[in-house]
Amino acid sequence: MTKRRSEAELAFLSIEEAARLLRRREVSPVELVEAALQRIDRANSRVNAFLTVLAEPALRQARAAERELRRGRASSLLHGIPIALKDNFYTRGIRTTAGSKILADLIPKTNSDAAERLSSAGAILLGKTNMHEFAYGITSENPHYGPVHNPWALERISGGSSGGSAAAVAAGMCFAATGTDTGGSIRVPASLCGVVGLKPTYGLVSVAGTVPLAPGFDHVGPLARSVTDACIVLEAIAGTYPKGVPRLDHRALRKNRSRRIRIGWPREYYFERIDPDVRRVVERAAQTLAKALNARVAEVPLSGLQEGVEAATNVIVAEASYYHETQGYFPARAAEYGDDVRGHLEWGAKLRAVDYMRGLEKKREVEAAFDAAFESADAIVAPSTPIAAAKIGDTAVRVAGKRESSVRAELLRMTRPVNVSGHPAVSIPCGFTPAGLPVGLQLIGPKWGEAKLLAIALAYEDATDWRALHPELQ
Amino acid sequence: MTKRRSEAELAFLSIEEAARLLRRREVSPVELVEAALQRIDRANSRVNAFLTVLAEPALRQARAAERELRRGRASSLLHGIPIALKDNFYTRGIRTTAGSKILADLIPKTNSDAAERLSSAGAILLGKTNMHEFAYGITSENPHYGPVHNPWALERISGGSSGGSAAAVAAGMCFAATGTDTGGSIRVPASLCGVVGLKPTYGLVSVAGTVPLAPGFDHVGPLARSVTDACIVLEAIAGTYPKGVPRLDHRALRKNRSRRIRIGWPREYYFERIDPDVRRVVERAAQTLAKALNARVAEVPLSGLQEGVEAATNVIVAEASYYHETQGYFPARAAEYGDDVRGHLEWGAKLRAVDYMRGLEKKREVEAAFDAAFESADAIVAPSTPIAAAKIGDTAVRVAGKRESSVRAELLRMTRPVNVSGHPAVSIPCGFTPAGLPVGLQLIGPKWGEAKLLAIALAYEDATDWRALHPELQ
Repeated sequence: MTKRRSEAELAFLSIEEAARLLRRREVSPVELVEAALQRIDRANSRVNAFLTVLAEPALRQARAAERELRRGRASSLLHGIPIALKDNFYTRGIRTTAGSKILADLIPKTNSDAAERLSSAGAILLGKTNMHEFAYGITSENPHYGPVHNPWALERISGGSSGGSAAAVAAGMCFAATGTDTGGSIRVPASLCGVVGLKPTYGLVSVAGTVPLAPGFDHVGPLARSVTDACIVLEAIAGTYPKGVPRLDHRALRKNRSRRIRIGWPREYYFERIDPDVRRVVERAAQTLAKALNARVAEVPLSGLQEGVEAATNVIVAEASYYHETQGYFPARAAEYGDDVRGHLEWGAKLRAVDYMRGLEKKREVEAAFDAAFESADAIVAPSTPIAAAKIGDTAVRVAGKRESSVRAELLRMTRPVNVSGHPAVSIPCGFTPAGLPVGLQLIGPKWGEAKLLAIALAYEDATDWRALHPELQ
Repeated sequence: MTKRRSEAELAFLSIEEAARLLRRREVSPVELVEAALQRIDRANSRVNAFLTVLAEPALRQARAAERELRRGRASSLLHGIPIALKDNFYTRGIRTTAGSKILADLIPKTNSDAAERLSSAGAILLGKTNMHEFAYGITSENPHYGPVHNPWALERISGGSSGGSAAAVAAGMCFAATGTDTGGSIRVPASLCGVVGLKPTYGLVSVAGTVPLAPGFDHVGPLARSVTDACIVLEAIAGTYPKGVPRLDHRALRKNRSRRIRIGWPREYYFERIDPDVRRVVERAAQTLAKALNARVAEVPLSGLQEGVEAATNVIVAEASYYHETQGYFPARAAEYGDDVRGHLEWGAKLRAVDYMRGLEKKREVEAAFDAAFESADAIVAPSTPIAAAKIGDTAVRVAGKRESSVRAELLRMTRPVNVSGHPAVSIPCGFTPAGLPVGLQLIGPKWGEAKLLAIALAYEDATDWRALHPELQ
């Protein structure tokens, strides 16, 4: 006898569980898609997570997936699972705006690599998610399509630039989504929306067919509701690991628990100017993690990063301006950008070549500093963001008693160093502020070390029921 | 019975012949050094090729080399051969000015790789040669140490930046010398002074320990009086070839003559605006070469380079400014530069990062264009310079009836594309203008193809006695 499940029960299934139920034919892909579409129908007008909803094509795909499942032809665990793509992933025949007015009518003729891989894995594309214009900002306050609203507090930002993806996953509008991360654009919205967001090692996942922001720093990765779900999506989209590194396998994540794990705590850099509410949650989470792993926590030398990261930021900004110039978007169509993105592009267009070169040199130093830190740590722990979700429209913010003039700079402070270095990093939900806003714990690992990094993240997830940490449940 | 040789006979021996005589003890290293020092004594006050002459150390070294030769301990063909280094090669304990006031008192604690390799090969260091300040110019009109005078016409430039090396080799003040070439700095002075100058494939010879101009374009190479001598020096300083490319061997250069050689003639680009006297000499040389090789001469597609080279020049200029900024020389000590170099550095300091990136992209296109050309040619033939040596002090020059405002730009026009592309190129003397000024034939080859390129150059050298082409002998 098949249990009758509510829309919410269906929509919030883990991918692993949904895949099991699909194979047992206890649920069908059509039910999953319908549940997700119902939630989109009801909530998207308020959350604004989707720019394009592909209701009919998704249902058609679901019916096809159902037939294939009946014939035992499931290409992967993602077969029949409804997912979403950030709107800067090229999708063949489907509008791809990158959250911009300039690309408002772009209908690509080809799929991005990630779209193609997810499609091959049998995932069902529900739609394209809202984002910060051209992925060039961290709030997803989109001047052309409206802001993404945080599902936990609709008057607050979702974070960005993959804000729509994070909000859609958090609100049960899809099972997982893709994001791009150039300075924190997966981890920051994951942190603010209470989902898992993974930025893999630079180069592991192809960025081909995504609208670039800064090619030397762009990463593609998953947003999902659990570490295992994120791992399953990463398995589908990942390229190949260097020789000697075993393929990622979500079924193996719990295996190496017993090994001695060293958790690094880079006090000098990360723990300056953290909102006390956020700090309290993250410090408790780090303790929980250490206990779960029976791990040693020790300070790791990771000082002096700030200068390097600031210099490397010049490279990001210059690369972005170069792309927009070579495409003929900027300055030719400057009026069609939002004020913030236009400002960044103007900055990048003026940057000196010598400062770009200095930034490249500093980038290598930052990378070396992280590499050195991982000689004495298996993972570095840090907040994903030093503050919880700001109010939509706010530009200034108080952090640890001091007024900071830029929400954007604050939100990026914890994540950008890892884009400069290229190391893998995951943000996992680890609790809430007293106001009930999600807080993310960032775990950073050595290059190509996704397997161990996710194993550590999963140990934390297994050890705590983070939803139960919500103040209303305390 | 040992033949008694004049100073000139000794000083103008080929390296191969000198090495043979040294081994037979028909001459001694001391005689070679003394002959060279006598010529320096007599001519350097007029030519100004040397900034530092190491008379005593060279004689000491020569006596040691003599003892070693007597014991049959010659480390290479260069054992006991007097050579010179351009003054931007670090020499341990010996002043290295790079032709600048800023480094006027620099006494390095280490040798450049090339200095070290030549020393290991047994070559005797006679001195350090004058050059364009910081290698950042093509005339060797040095504001701090005076201009290098062309030995063929003392009122004319030697070309640069390795002008002292070219003049010293041409005037028999040393047997060979090193140069650096970022836009033509080996080939241009070789062309104007009537010697052989080789810019190897980018990366073949270590630039470690040379004062950089633009690291992405800097090459180290030899200046010598014959193709074989240049090859012998290159063998001593070269690093390793990629797998599958045999080691260079001057003894093998005449072996592959019989093979069908295709000579490429890139009319559209190179043969615009050539001084008619130079063009006549080069066209006749190309015919001689084709006949000597029984080769087919065909046009090769190499158009549209100009835009790419101009864009890539931004990269050179920016890299130069970056170096001088990071060393704290510029702008801090701007007043200590010559006007021209200061002007270039100011230009580079202002360049935009996006133009630098565009230049890098264009650089790859130029490289690809040359690579494509070598699919239908074994060597591309061109003038080394579109004009012969200008008068010292001249800035404007007439080329093919048109007044050109910059001697510098004209002198670089034929050589710089090959720095942008990174292909090997050699300038060999191929005749004289009616006024008796040397003209250089540039031969450009595919990457890592030094062996065949020098074999082709040697075929030309064997087929003609270029000195006999001098108008006074006609």
